[in-house]
Amino acid sequence: MSEAVPSNLTATALASAIRRREVSAVEVVRRSLAAIDRSQSRTNAFTMIDVEGALNQATDADRRLACGRISGPLHGVPIAVKDNYLTHNLPTTAASRVLGDRPLLGEATVVSRLRQAGAIIIGKTNMHEWAYGATNEVSAYGPTRNPWNLEHITGGSSGGSGAAVAADMVTIALGSDTGGSIRIPAAACGISGIKPTYGTLSPDGLLPLSWSFDCAGPMARTAQDLAVALQIMAGVKRPERIVRTFSGVRLGVIAGRGFECATDVAARVNDAIEAIVRDGALRSSVTIVDAGHGFSMWKAIMFAEASAYHKTYLTEAPEGYAPGVRSQLEAGRCIAAIDYIAAQQFRTVFVQQVKALLESVDILVMPTLPVTAPRAGANCVTIAGRETSTQDAMTCMPWLANFTGLPAVSIPCGPGSSNLPVGMTLIGRAGSDFTLLDMAERFQALTSWHDLRPEMQ
Amino acid sequence: MSEAVPSNLTATALASAIRRREVSAVEVVRRSLAAIDRSQSRTNAFTMIDVEGALNQATDADRRLACGRISGPLHGVPIAVKDNYLTHNLPTTAASRVLGDRPLLGEATVVSRLRQAGAIIIGKTNMHEWAYGATNEVSAYGPTRNPWNLEHITGGSSGGSGAAVAADMVTIALGSDTGGSIRIPAAACGISGIKPTYGTLSPDGLLPLSWSFDCAGPMARTAQDLAVALQIMAGVKRPERIVRTFSGVRLGVIAGRGFECATDVAARVNDAIEAIVRDGALRSSVTIVDAGHGFSMWKAIMFAEASAYHKTYLTEAPEGYAPGVRSQLEAGRCIAAIDYIAAQQFRTVFVQQVKALLESVDILVMPTLPVTAPRAGANCVTIAGRETSTQDAMTCMPWLANFTGLPAVSIPCGPGSSNLPVGMTLIGRAGSDFTLLDMAERFQALTSWHDLRPEMQ
Repeated sequence: MSEAVPSNLTATALASAIRRREVSAVEVVRRSLAAIDRSQSRTNAFTMIDVEGALNQATDADRRLACGRISGPLHGVPIAVKDNYLTHNLPTTAASRVLGDRPLLGEATVVSRLRQAGAIIIGKTNMHEWAYGATNEVSAYGPTRNPWNLEHITGGSSGGSGAAVAADMVTIALGSDTGGSIRIPAAACGISGIKPTYGTLSPDGLLPLSWSFDCAGPMARTAQDLAVALQIMAGVKRPERIVRTFSGVRLGVIAGRGFECATDVAARVNDAIEAIVRDGALRSSVTIVDAGHGFSMWKAIMFAEASAYHKTYLTEAPEGYAPGVRSQLEAGRCIAAIDYIAAQQFRTVFVQQVKALLESVDILVMPTLPVTAPRAGANCVTIAGRETSTQDAMTCMPWLANFTGLPAVSIPCGPGSSNLPVGMTLIGRAGSDFTLLDMAERFQALTSWHDLRPEMQ
Repeated sequence: MSEAVPSNLTATALASAIRRREVSAVEVVRRSLAAIDRSQSRTNAFTMIDVEGALNQATDADRRLACGRISGPLHGVPIAVKDNYLTHNLPTTAASRVLGDRPLLGEATVVSRLRQAGAIIIGKTNMHEWAYGATNEVSAYGPTRNPWNLEHITGGSSGGSGAAVAADMVTIALGSDTGGSIRIPAAACGISGIKPTYGTLSPDGLLPLSWSFDCAGPMARTAQDLAVALQIMAGVKRPERIVRTFSGVRLGVIAGRGFECATDVAARVNDAIEAIVRDGALRSSVTIVDAGHGFSMWKAIMFAEASAYHKTYLTEAPEGYAPGVRSQLEAGRCIAAIDYIAAQQFRTVFVQQVKALLESVDILVMPTLPVTAPRAGANCVTIAGRETSTQDAMTCMPWLANFTGLPAVSIPCGPGSSNLPVGMTLIGRAGSDFTLLDMAERFQALTSWHDLRPEMQ
């Protein structure tokens, strides 16, 4: 790596350095591979690393650049892709043994677009098996570990992508989000991640979990990098920035039942909100009616849809699943259609409630998670004196954006009591993905929590 | 009734005669009430007749007309409304005892629009209980009978509306259509009826059967009257006529498995197609792949959604249902969510097939029913040598338009072997409702089957 180019650049800065020929794509990929070499054995972030392919793609990128041909905004930048996206060059396993000898062909639309924009797919990231869990402790490749403290989980199901960005192995990694799977590891690993408005990104080539909720999305250190990735993935031009400060922006801070959290998390999120208010935002408190029931209905829909998708695999290769995933998929087969339908109907009414809230405020704000990353192997955590499963602790807040289809970005807002990261979530109106990222970018201009990095043991 | 105004006018002609003051609204309503008086005891078409209300509304219509105030295109024209639409002036029973003492308040959007356009709601029509059947033999008000032969059924579930128009009790009647419930009685009673594109008409105030498929729609003697009613119900202006003849129109005649029919029906439909071809249409034959499976999947979705809607009623007032309706609703509770979801997914793929067909042809053509109206009390009918339930015989063709959401119009095309009417169905592209009615109108300009009337015993 050229001495002139500092380490720890964002994807945006890296792409710009490559374009200015301050550093070659081959050097950038080598540096990324070296970082993976240092961190992979400890974090287990990757299921597969394409050393040769990535170097070949980088050589090609440099050759094209020498002829003045720039593929796009990510020319020469290595990225990582969660192992539930189909990719031409690498097999897809969904971190499960089920697909073992049945390779899935093709490439996800969003992956192809990133490739066309110059990105180099350096490897596939580890995940909770089939994305059917939020701890990332269940994977045919073994659990991922949090770069901030290897005895803690990354959260999931995009935990590998979370660890890969947090430990500077790549600047951008793809996640997928059905009930928080992008935002949970983003918060737990101290990086940024967006679940776009449902339908913004093509789900084509992304293995489904629950199509009523599934969203593709990017994870990165900064909101700026998220916006670069999102515009490429969506095949749109980022609209002109509207939000330059928080002046006059009405925040609805979600409080009340279903949104209780640990004191260290509450303190960090409160500090973050105060920074936004100092920048001109107007703060009010809002409550979500029937949040507990909504959480249950989100689960019912997801369980039923996951079991529907897995019906054939479950018959043909039941031994391929981890026991917990398999038993949950089997249980989901017993959900009655009338209950699934009732859940979808409840959802329609619930969405109206949250959309109405977003007429009186501009964004909803809440902690991404009620706690910092739990210890590996802990089945339960205690939140505000109440014990809950780790799975529920991870999803009990993020589900809201999936159930309503609204865009939600998680951004780091400082370390909690055990020096583990805390994340804050902003939820915007349907279709306002880039406005939401403008706000996150403004927050990151006011603070520097996104620049904090783990010191790995 | 003024001697100058002939009987048997269409709604369009009647409205125009009223506007020209050749006949008063009161006279028109009286004539409608006299026709009901003659035919109601034999056909049992109505569940409720609002003699006083209709005469009051007519008096009011005449008074407004005298001041030069015309409410709209149906000023002073009496219409009938199927008893599953909420109406301000009359109770709604869905032809069931379940709702007995729990009046449902409000008025369906499409009913309000017809009222605002000047129509007078003269009564509510009989139907298959909760629209959950296609024979119209199951109703808290007793079965309806076909004006063409009182020993035969009207088909359903909008059988009362079919009989009311066929016997000239009203010129326009509302039906609802989840698997043919408008087109089945239209065909069986020798009148016209359209199931619009799914979503064209507001379902607000129409009691649901299966919201994936439910469509409101009008029934009338002529396609022209259907178009008048449809534009009012949709709150749109009828687009300028595009189709003036069938010249160059590509017909795809549906043949093959799942679309077998009796010889008399085939002969009448073939004659009708030949009339269209003589007018310039190009005829080809098309097949629907997996039609049998589609028919089953349509049932699975409908059964599950009906059971979901009836969950509370079924617990609170199970004795209010007819035994067959109740047992079917109870059976529907056992459908698994994974099977419901698989059915919805199959439907997505199936819709693509039929939409692709509608790129190579302009309209699909088929018999509305494989047989003429079956005898009352017959549980089974024989079609092309195969015995099938009367319920399946009524729905085995019409379901196609509901499953795909496409608009479908049924128009009479002559008498079958026992002098009972035969209907032909035209299916168009999504959103092409008025074009489809243009074609039906052209057919009715070429033929006069729609003018044939039953001679009631």
